[in-house]
Amino acid sequence: MKPAIYVKDGDTVELEVKEASDGQIRRNSDLNDVTNLDFSRIHPLTGPIFVEGAEPGDALKVEILDIHGEGWGWTAVIPGFGFLSKENDVPEGVNSQALKIWSSDEGYVSAKFGDIYVKVKEFPFPGVIGTGMRLNGVWSTIPPRENGGNMDVKQMTVSSRIYFPVFRKGALLSVGDTHLAQGDGEVCGSAVEAPTKVKLRVEVVKSRNLKSPVFVSKPREAEYDGDHITFMGFSNDLWNASLMVVKEAISFLSNFMEPVEAYMLLSTVMDLKVSQVVDVPNWTVSGFIPVSVFGNKGGEIMDAFEARER
Amino acid sequence: MKPAIYVKDGDTVELEVKEASDGQIRRNSDLNDVTNLDFSRIHPLTGPIFVEGAEPGDALKVEILDIHGEGWGWTAVIPGFGFLSKENDVPEGVNSQALKIWSSDEGYVSAKFGDIYVKVKEFPFPGVIGTGMRLNGVWSTIPPRENGGNMDVKQMTVSSRIYFPVFRKGALLSVGDTHLAQGDGEVCGSAVEAPTKVKLRVEVVKSRNLKSPVFVSKPREAEYDGDHITFMGFSNDLWNASLMVVKEAISFLSNFMEPVEAYMLLSTVMDLKVSQVVDVPNWTVSGFIPVSVFGNKGGEIMDAFEARER
Repeated sequence: MKPAIYVKDGDTVELEVKEASDGQIRRNSDLNDVTNLDFSRIHPLTGPIFVEGAEPGDALKVEILDIHGEGWGWTAVIPGFGFLSKENDVPEGVNSQALKIWSSDEGYVSAKFGDIYVKVKEFPFPGVIGTGMRLNGVWSTIPPRENGGNMDVKQMTVSSRIYFPVFRKGALLSVGDTHLAQGDGEVCGSAVEAPTKVKLRVEVVKSRNLKSPVFVSKPREAEYDGDHITFMGFSNDLWNASLMVVKEAISFLSNFMEPVEAYMLLSTVMDLKVSQVVDVPNWTVSGFIPVSVFGNKGGEIMDAFEARER
Repeated sequence: MKPAIYVKDGDTVELEVKEASDGQIRRNSDLNDVTNLDFSRIHPLTGPIFVEGAEPGDALKVEILDIHGEGWGWTAVIPGFGFLSKENDVPEGVNSQALKIWSSDEGYVSAKFGDIYVKVKEFPFPGVIGTGMRLNGVWSTIPPRENGGNMDVKQMTVSSRIYFPVFRKGALLSVGDTHLAQGDGEVCGSAVEAPTKVKLRVEVVKSRNLKSPVFVSKPREAEYDGDHITFMGFSNDLWNASLMVVKEAISFLSNFMEPVEAYMLLSTVMDLKVSQVVDVPNWTVSGFIPVSVFGNKGGEIMDAFEARER
């Protein structure tokens, strides 16, 4: 693939990055745009950027200097895609197409879920960022690989320094799928997807011989204070333990909104952690939901969590 | 099993909790005590506590009011146990028996790893806490189950409120396996194991009909500021993605200490997160290591992380 631009080792680069749907979903979109979505256009990338001096075996250091959005974002459930898409024992409608448009202002994204005005801290990051693949060919942008790509690691945000293996002359860095917010897990298959402007600094580290990307980050400023409500899953399979967490969380939130809305909300705010992988034969996965995102409805939700009958 | 004590709904209870080895590992232990460890004595529990008025179908609310240790703790690798115990492609010695004794002072546990004096924030919590099982019988304390037990969820710390399903008259709460520190994952199979005094408040919530425990917690005070170094794993299996993270992290830390020491350190400080479960067919698991635990050696370790050749 022909490089879009050529830059020098140490240069700062400013990019315009499209949101994941390549403009098919817009600020004023409705469900019809999800119905008609052409999935083959998912993840338009900005790049590739040819960095002079980068040779196979080197690393490319990418420092994220700034990302900002344009005042809106979207989250959708696309049938056939998402963590629950193969599950049958889920509330009706969880895997149906759905769309939520968020507005973004003063460091928060907000949208109505049921009759709750949800406000989520913004911490923009590129869902997709990676160097050119080792092998020639046309590749899907969906799976992450040794070159990075669709890693969806939300801590990879402003001030992070990411080190990528270089497989091609010039490194051939591309960026896409920027998110304004995401929970660890991104369970419904999309985060708060948004077009952004991204400012990066690139640097060649000679002969680094990385096997796959690594990065340095600070705990993101956007961590929530206050109470978190937590569901746990226990299983001899981390996937099934995670499913148990997500299903329980949807079941609870469905007291306040449509199940499919709960699914989209969890994709945006719930963090999945691997609590332990050693207590044979059941591993623990925990999912944390910060109550502060529910604003003045937080008290009601907390009461329901602590006293509900089901 | 006959209750050890009877308490009223709403009572505060103070417990003395043994560390996981039941006194087989002591403050002045050496490797011989690991060699001679009788695994059948693992997880002595304090309890059961019979809470008056608790009936099957209710929930038992347990608020953790205080936990404090006795100035020391231990971490060990016990052959045959731990996340890497079935792996062959690991550095020599990773799965050999090993023991680290930590001293605890002013909110930190500390121990020497290689020639690095590692200092880890203390946030004591019960590895094992749970109500009486639904079925009669003698049960291993190793796996977590619907009644709780060996969940090893480190956020379940002082000020947390945990809700357990009640399966037996009186709830029959037991506590054990207290930890002074642990990373999400507890990868080597032990955390900073320590005898503690635990203060709890118990309360019956009628007819709650929980399927498994849930809890409320605040982000723990012990979160680390500053840079974190992060390894990522990509695989169509969350277990294999997690293995990739742990192996890469051990490989890096082995530049500074024995591989088995790196394994024990990661068990104590590295947090495993499920970054995404939707980018078909490769999921992302990320492991975060706070550089501040390395004290004045942090700069050297960060330099090595950012510029190393391997």
